[in-house]
Amino acid sequence: MVKIISKKVLMKKLIIIVLLVAFAGLYGYGQRKMVNLPDLPGYVTLKCDFHMHTVFSDGSVWPTVRVEEAFRDGLDAIAITDHIEYTPKEDFIPVNHNAAWEIAKVAADEYNIMLVHGTEITRDMPPGHMNALFIEDASLLEVDSAEDVYAEAVRQGAFLQWNHPGWKSQEPDGIPKLYNIHKKLIEKGWLHGIEFFNDNEYYPTVLTFCRQFNLAVMANSDNHGAISEEYPSLYYSNRPMTLVFAKERTRNALKDAMFAGRTIAYFNDYLAGKEEFVKPFFYKCISVGKPYYQDDENVYFEVTNSSDIPFYLVNGVPEAPQSITLTANEVTRLVISKKASFPLIYDVKNVLIGEDEVLKVELKY
Amino acid sequence: MVKIISKKVLMKKLIIIVLLVAFAGLYGYGQRKMVNLPDLPGYVTLKCDFHMHTVFSDGSVWPTVRVEEAFRDGLDAIAITDHIEYTPKEDFIPVNHNAAWEIAKVAADEYNIMLVHGTEITRDMPPGHMNALFIEDASLLEVDSAEDVYAEAVRQGAFLQWNHPGWKSQEPDGIPKLYNIHKKLIEKGWLHGIEFFNDNEYYPTVLTFCRQFNLAVMANSDNHGAISEEYPSLYYSNRPMTLVFAKERTRNALKDAMFAGRTIAYFNDYLAGKEEFVKPFFYKCISVGKPYYQDDENVYFEVTNSSDIPFYLVNGVPEAPQSITLTANEVTRLVISKKASFPLIYDVKNVLIGEDEVLKVELKY
Amino acid sequence: MVKIISKKVLMKKLIIIVLLVAFAGLYGYGQRKMVNLPDLPGYVTLKCDFHMHTVFSDGSVWPTVRVEEAFRDGLDAIAITDHIEYTPKEDFIPVNHNAAWEIAKVAADEYNIMLVHGTEITRDMPPGHMNALFIEDASLLEVDSAEDVYAEAVRQGAFLQWNHPGWKSQEPDGIPKLYNIHKKLIEKGWLHGIEFFNDNEYYPTVLTFCRQFNLAVMANSDNHGAISEEYPSLYYSNRPMTLVFAKERTRNALKDAMFAGRTIAYFNDYLAGKEEFVKPFFYKCISVGKPYYQDDENVYFEVTNSSDIPFYLVNGVPEAPQSITLTANEVTRLVISKKASFPLIYDVKNVLIGEDEVLKVELKY
Amino acid sequence: MVKIISKKVLMKKLIIIVLLVAFAGLYGYGQRKMVNLPDLPGYVTLKCDFHMHTVFSDGSVWPTVRVEEAFRDGLDAIAITDHIEYTPKEDFIPVNHNAAWEIAKVAADEYNIMLVHGTEITRDMPPGHMNALFIEDASLLEVDSAEDVYAEAVRQGAFLQWNHPGWKSQEPDGIPKLYNIHKKLIEKGWLHGIEFFNDNEYYPTVLTFCRQFNLAVMANSDNHGAISEEYPSLYYSNRPMTLVFAKERTRNALKDAMFAGRTIAYFNDYLAGKEEFVKPFFYKCISVGKPYYQDDENVYFEVTNSSDIPFYLVNGVPEAPQSITLTANEVTRLVISKKASFPLIYDVKNVLIGEDEVLKVELKY
Repeated sequence: MVKIISKKVLMKKLIIIVLLVAFAGLYGYGQRKMVNLPDLPGYVTLKCDFHMHTVFSDGSVWPTVRVEEAFRDGLDAIAITDHIEYTPKEDFIPVNHNAAWEIAKVAADEYNIMLVHGTEITRDMPPGHMNALFIEDASLLEVDSAEDVYAEAVRQGAFLQWNHPGWKSQEPDGIPKLYNIHKKLIEKGWLHGIEFFNDNEYYPTVLTFCRQFNLAVMANSDNHGAISEEYPSLYYSNRPMTLVFAKERTRNALKDAMFAGRTIAYFNDYLAGKEEFVKPFFYKCISVGKPYYQDDENVYFEVTNSSDIPFYLVNGVPEAPQSITLTANEVTRLVISKKASFPLIYDVKNVLIGEDEVLKVELKY
Repeated sequence: MVKIISKKVLMKKLIIIVLLVAFAGLYGYGQRKMVNLPDLPGYVTLKCDFHMHTVFSDGSVWPTVRVEEAFRDGLDAIAITDHIEYTPKEDFIPVNHNAAWEIAKVAADEYNIMLVHGTEITRDMPPGHMNALFIEDASLLEVDSAEDVYAEAVRQGAFLQWNHPGWKSQEPDGIPKLYNIHKKLIEKGWLHGIEFFNDNEYYPTVLTFCRQFNLAVMANSDNHGAISEEYPSLYYSNRPMTLVFAKERTRNALKDAMFAGRTIAYFNDYLAGKEEFVKPFFYKCISVGKPYYQDDENVYFEVTNSSDIPFYLVNGVPEAPQSITLTANEVTRLVISKKASFPLIYDVKNVLIGEDEVLKVELKY
Repeated sequence: MVKIISKKVLMKKLIIIVLLVAFAGLYGYGQRKMVNLPDLPGYVTLKCDFHMHTVFSDGSVWPTVRVEEAFRDGLDAIAITDHIEYTPKEDFIPVNHNAAWEIAKVAADEYNIMLVHGTEITRDMPPGHMNALFIEDASLLEVDSAEDVYAEAVRQGAFLQWNHPGWKSQEPDGIPKLYNIHKKLIEKGWLHGIEFFNDNEYYPTVLTFCRQFNLAVMANSDNHGAISEEYPSLYYSNRPMTLVFAKERTRNALKDAMFAGRTIAYFNDYLAGKEEFVKPFFYKCISVGKPYYQDDENVYFEVTNSSDIPFYLVNGVPEAPQSITLTANEVTRLVISKKASFPLIYDVKNVLIGEDEVLKVELKY
Repeated sequence: MVKIISKKVLMKKLIIIVLLVAFAGLYGYGQRKMVNLPDLPGYVTLKCDFHMHTVFSDGSVWPTVRVEEAFRDGLDAIAITDHIEYTPKEDFIPVNHNAAWEIAKVAADEYNIMLVHGTEITRDMPPGHMNALFIEDASLLEVDSAEDVYAEAVRQGAFLQWNHPGWKSQEPDGIPKLYNIHKKLIEKGWLHGIEFFNDNEYYPTVLTFCRQFNLAVMANSDNHGAISEEYPSLYYSNRPMTLVFAKERTRNALKDAMFAGRTIAYFNDYLAGKEEFVKPFFYKCISVGKPYYQDDENVYFEVTNSSDIPFYLVNGVPEAPQSITLTANEVTRLVISKKASFPLIYDVKNVLIGEDEVLKVELKY
């Protein structure tokens, strides 16, 4: 008379039909991940990676692979940036600095990826490695003098990005330093962005430089192999991305936004950038609900985080929770003592706005 | 001079800080899953499960567990429905038909779950098992005559739901049948909903009954153990849910919507319901983008599915893809031949609107 | 003429057949996890958890759930240890200290789990909480005086285990201390084991006590809800287990081994115990292969870790790798400089043999 | 006085130490997966993949990638088999049929992978595509006449493998056929193996051919991109592998075993091969325990499957379970009615020994 727990009659028909269709569907088409990150008022948020390699320098994949990866990862724009000065496969692949661009271009159109023509100018420190983005012809950048090569890049309209400025192979203490050549480039307006995140490294002082000289804060993968084998992983929740706040999703708007420094660096659940972008971005990610219940001691309410980024709130006011995790794409239930001293101010541990400074926010219901 | 792939300097400080905070955060608060399902114009979509058991009948968990599970799974409302006539643990737990309700009520308030007072009236077929929902006192339903028990439930204002009408232990061929007693209940207006999905079973003819008599199509877990050990699993993407389209998120609006039959049954990537609800629901889940590229042969565009439900489109028009999977929470890229005969009409294999009928939709960019 | 990457003809028939069978199989039978941990010469390694609760004290599940969980998790023996002095559900469930044992016994036989009759004697610190294991009748332990209750337990032949001795609710600084009552118990031979791991806590000084007085080092879950919702998780790789080295897989041999102190505490990739057990256990987990290749500078060889426990080797000798992770159930490839000073001695960071002491091992090919 | 469920004091120190070490370890060394498959008496079971591509024909990765993938996947031997007649990247990469071999050789030595020199002779059907394995110089195989090319391969000592014989682009009905040229090759002893599994396709008639002419049954990935992006996946549990039963783990023993036809094709939880290999292989995978319990009606015992392959047993004798799944690397608990007619014979649905024939086994405790 009664249903027994272990009884199971299976939805056989239903399940098999779904599977068949799923298979058919899976292989005819492609899926692009939805990256849940909000736009800012007046801007669309473009997800970009401006640093990666292929078999045309020291990478191990064919250029079209980079486009397919970007599509799957939900990116809007990428640049393939093979080294000008380092082509270790030249015994088997003749040097051709524009090859990757030419090969990847059609795929990019078909996959709705904005492909930025780029290259990595690969020098000792100083000045270290520098990416030239939005160029016309990489082969013209094969010149000896550092000064000449940047001049040529600028002539082509390039955005110049200083790569991994604290890379220990070039800067043994890991701390980026502005050498004379960097200062000169900045004076001339020839340096436009610096990598805060490169692969799984980060360089806190970059925030200081970018704030001082209004440069774009960048985050890129510098990937050499298959990106899916690096991110996401047990240790890294997502690939590094430069978030660019552009007037629209076009190559020109992207370029304008980068030159204007409207970016946030995003990697492994961390945001790093200027407060003017990072603050409104945070408040667009979360929404605080009205209290749904209270008892003698506590008020109960929920905070919805609709973004892919968890936020780690710390240093709460007295009697309030000292730390709160607003999990990504989830609703966090808060039980706040009526004795807490309002307003509910927190430091957001994983949102960096300066070398030693994190974003301060308020939870206001 | 050049970056080597295998080089890795670790983000030690950053990572450890995040972990510490994460831990602190994880245990002080609770997270509610975001179930990505759209509202309908004029209605909020409430995610509900109106059938589950505890140690007070033949379940194996304490009533508060059901509230915590519902919270974690992102539900809005649940009913605990222990059997009136089957209490196999009575040697250890004295029979108390209202105990689960009393125990769970405070937890429900604190977790923002609407707890519906319910019970399962557990009879041989016909009429089989019937849930009485929105009751006042379950102990008054411990009466011998089936007719009397439904009368008492109705007197209390109950919504009466016929459970697993094709359960093979009671209906050996698995096909639900309207016996005289069911017809009488319907005539009197005493039957308000029928389970299309119960646990991992489904009963196609329920759609016919519900359409004919304007009853609510229901999907419930009928869970006895820990729900997390059943759903999601390798085989089932989510627990069964009754989606209720209510004017607002209140107990009264929920009840009104159910009596009005404004529901969809949802389980394991399947939707089953009346076309009037299912059709607008589908179109609120997806959005078709403008073509972003074309070449001589094809048009390229993207379809965004912002819901947790993948849609399996089949039976495409000539020269169009014959089947398309619109993966949940992803963007599907479509390449359509210019020779395809428009409009692009598809059957949605996993959206059922009748016993042998699936939803027909158009992809219109 | 050539195979194109995107071509996919599906193994439809094969896949569907497998799925159907898989379903049929899944629900008729049950699977027990294989826990990959080696035996020691002359002993079998029994995986045990001697601390957990049910609805008969402050747990939230029915006793049979504990047996099913143990079966799925691959355990050999468990004890359900509801509190004698704390029965918060007594308004609904009459106090019955032997109920959980009686209810779980048959299930244990059917699932090949050795069920140890136990209870938790729940007192303020000192002496704190104490589990009595291998008892005959828990109801006789409902006595006021602490001295009397231990005497009665010992009269029944109990193994007495001191639970979470550094639990901060009872011992604010988190550091276990031997109070007079503990010393007396030890003198009388009435204390047989101490929890090093309890739930996700650990107490380093327990190793000192256990070495000094030859007590068993214990690790238990102290679980109250569904164990699957706690372990494994993002943070904990497995549930706490006491590994007992018994002459054979019988209740008597288990009891003998525990009284003899032949145990290792195992939790979250950590082992803690006396060196006499931990050292041979480590060497049974791994095997070092012969060098398969060498070049001018390096020797190449592989280390196989056939256990579920990763080993974190640190403090390598000069010119050898400073740290090595021997991943669980994988083969680790080592490239060792010919200039390294042999023997290759390492500290195993996650194998604790004393309060501040880890196991030292040699990799010898 | 009592432990509360929600209390959590964290193992902070412990966890952080582990993480730091884990990181250090992860990046200095490499891990090889343990593939749990038994040896046969007198033979070691070598896990092999003899069909894959690189940028030197129509693949998209550099040759060393294939070695690293094989290492991670736990393989013993691979062959890179770029097309002789199809080199679509020749505008950027000059044709060099031995390049992949030369590039991958050192990496293979360092990673303990046996690299077999191979190539794919790429012709219309008949004869279709054919891999020449264990060759000396692929460039000598660039000859027009099919007859000449096989003669040259044989002159170099090649093992000739017929690839995807039912590939629909060449054989529209998907069913492999022995054309005259194949028969001639067989007569001359110039055909040594046929792919039963290629990528996610399979060809049942291959078993008939291999049994009739004593050829090796092969399973290969025919991979073009990153293998980690194809296997394992939601749909495929592992990459295709040819299991070769060799006298020892050396290149010569491998070659001997292949010419002797001592292989099983393994893919996606399926085994296909000659009964003489498949039958002892099955019995080495499982062990049936003694009954540990019985009641009036049933006998209880456990079957341990120590391999990575689940076995789907069907068509049980009367009163015994009709189907049983012996999950991979788990222990299956069986409850058998005392009324079952012994012996317990089953068909193993996923172990194929002929076109329409599966292995029959007995569960004997």
